[in-house]
Amino acid sequence: MRISNTDRVLLSHGGGGRRTEELIEKVFRRHFSNPYLDSMDDSAILNITNRKFAFTTDSFVVKPIFFSGGDIGRLAVSGTVNDLSVMGARPMSLSAAFIIEEGLSFDELELIVESMASTLNEVGVPLVTADTKVVERGKAEKIYISMSGIGIIETEPAPSMDRIEPGDLLLINGPIGLHGFAVMLQREGLQFEGEIASDVAPLWDLISSVLSPDIKFMRDPTRGGLAMTLNEIAVATGFGVEINESDIPITPEVATVSELLGIEPIEVANEGKVLMVVKPDSAERILKKMRSHPLGKDAAIIGQVTQEHGDKVVMNTSLGTTKIITKPIGEALPRIC
Amino acid sequence: MRISNTDRVLLSHGGGGRRTEELIEKVFRRHFSNPYLDSMDDSAILNITNRKFAFTTDSFVVKPIFFSGGDIGRLAVSGTVNDLSVMGARPMSLSAAFIIEEGLSFDELELIVESMASTLNEVGVPLVTADTKVVERGKAEKIYISMSGIGIIETEPAPSMDRIEPGDLLLINGPIGLHGFAVMLQREGLQFEGEIASDVAPLWDLISSVLSPDIKFMRDPTRGGLAMTLNEIAVATGFGVEINESDIPITPEVATVSELLGIEPIEVANEGKVLMVVKPDSAERILKKMRSHPLGKDAAIIGQVTQEHGDKVVMNTSLGTTKIITKPIGEALPRIC
Repeated sequence: MRISNTDRVLLSHGGGGRRTEELIEKVFRRHFSNPYLDSMDDSAILNITNRKFAFTTDSFVVKPIFFSGGDIGRLAVSGTVNDLSVMGARPMSLSAAFIIEEGLSFDELELIVESMASTLNEVGVPLVTADTKVVERGKAEKIYISMSGIGIIETEPAPSMDRIEPGDLLLINGPIGLHGFAVMLQREGLQFEGEIASDVAPLWDLISSVLSPDIKFMRDPTRGGLAMTLNEIAVATGFGVEINESDIPITPEVATVSELLGIEPIEVANEGKVLMVVKPDSAERILKKMRSHPLGKDAAIIGQVTQEHGDKVVMNTSLGTTKIITKPIGEALPRIC
Repeated sequence: MRISNTDRVLLSHGGGGRRTEELIEKVFRRHFSNPYLDSMDDSAILNITNRKFAFTTDSFVVKPIFFSGGDIGRLAVSGTVNDLSVMGARPMSLSAAFIIEEGLSFDELELIVESMASTLNEVGVPLVTADTKVVERGKAEKIYISMSGIGIIETEPAPSMDRIEPGDLLLINGPIGLHGFAVMLQREGLQFEGEIASDVAPLWDLISSVLSPDIKFMRDPTRGGLAMTLNEIAVATGFGVEINESDIPITPEVATVSELLGIEPIEVANEGKVLMVVKPDSAERILKKMRSHPLGKDAAIIGQVTQEHGDKVVMNTSLGTTKIITKPIGEALPRIC
């Protein structure tokens, strides 16, 4: 079997871009197809008895495991909580499966576990079940963490791609690109004036503060960045997505690093951001409320869903031109989350 | 921080024996303590609305990924299904998180995915959500799979350690040691007359065929084997556990290999076995019913819970002597599951 013209898995198959899609499509979905999985949401929605649940899973293989603004433990809990939160689901129970490389120091392990525990406390959600495996030195890199989570959907109708209509506005809760650039700089040992810290944070508190049926869809733009999420919306709905470059929150440090590295912030992973698609007449109210929350103080309306540009993402650039934003092939660097 | 007199994680910390317990106790439980996790069951029981759910997670890092009688894919699905089944929970939804080493061939990946899909079909349970990460060559070994599962508890009262009383009988559904020895032989390239195939199988169909409140407790004796499970029962209940060596089903091939390698089958991992603690007056009925199922045809009553030998496991040997069975320090070989 050959995918992307190779018969072996490439690093870019894990980057969250087109190659990852191809891997999922050609290998996993072909065998596991069912309505839950096929919906390609970040969590499955389970209808058990009279309540709707979200069920999600993710592995975390970030390198290095400690980075400016966070660590793999905070990342794992936040990532799992956020995947539930964007489904409108209150995180209820999390699980963790640890794959540890022989030789990891207990001091490092403890720092990670402490960080997980403190992030769990922030959200008020318990880790209810766990598993630990150890592999030989060189058969993992320090530690990989897989987490799953269950949450109860708290809004009806729940946020869902198929509720999106032309005219809906796009909101984001703050500046993009922080997580990906923070990890890249640290890993490559790059120095520049100023510092970029990851935005990694659990978003349930922010999201629950504005949760209502007026929010039609939410997603956390992680691997592949905002470019990936917006393209997913355009492709799934068949509508166009129009964004204004000058409205997208970006810190001066991210702008500098983006130019130095030649990597667009819009393609870089976030771990504390949520993109919301909201009813036009509620956007200002939601924006105001988000801005009163520490994790939403730089929230902004960045664009809209349109009838034009069917299934394409178009950016009105700061230079007054327009530009098609395509799906990134893979994350600029692997192992960002 | 130091555990087992070292400041680094050792392979034996992942073996499922005393060292794993120590790692869990001294690192994980200290930070994550809550009633669900502290129960140290294979799944957490969640009380959502009016139904009780089981929620479980496990990572699979078996080496080699293909072995006589199975592969990592069948192992992952079976292990997860079995962790739910021993809680009396009908598997309802599974998740999978794949950590893939760059360079894995798509042909191998596809074999694994096919095997997972066919095992899922055997049980009739869907994979509802998944995630894929790729790490650099040499930063994993081919593929690691973490799975989580949700199930609905189908019996009331549910099987639980605290229901165990002296006089209860111990049942197992067939011969022990097959999985662990099959993997060891394959990995070490050991040859001998006869073949040992792993017993890896999903047990929900067998377990549901006998499920009733007469079954007080169940566990799948995986890492650390039957010795570990029996010791867990003795320690948790404070009662003694008495088993008869001659009643424990063992194949001639396992007996031979056990002598060759000097490893007791009772300490070797199983992946298609369930140990049941049952009411004495229902044991024969349950045994008969289990024997009518393909996965229980060699089922046997192997011992009982006693007032004597408080918190110890005592084996009446085939030689007429008695012997204390202690917890294995770690699995005889790492990466058995």
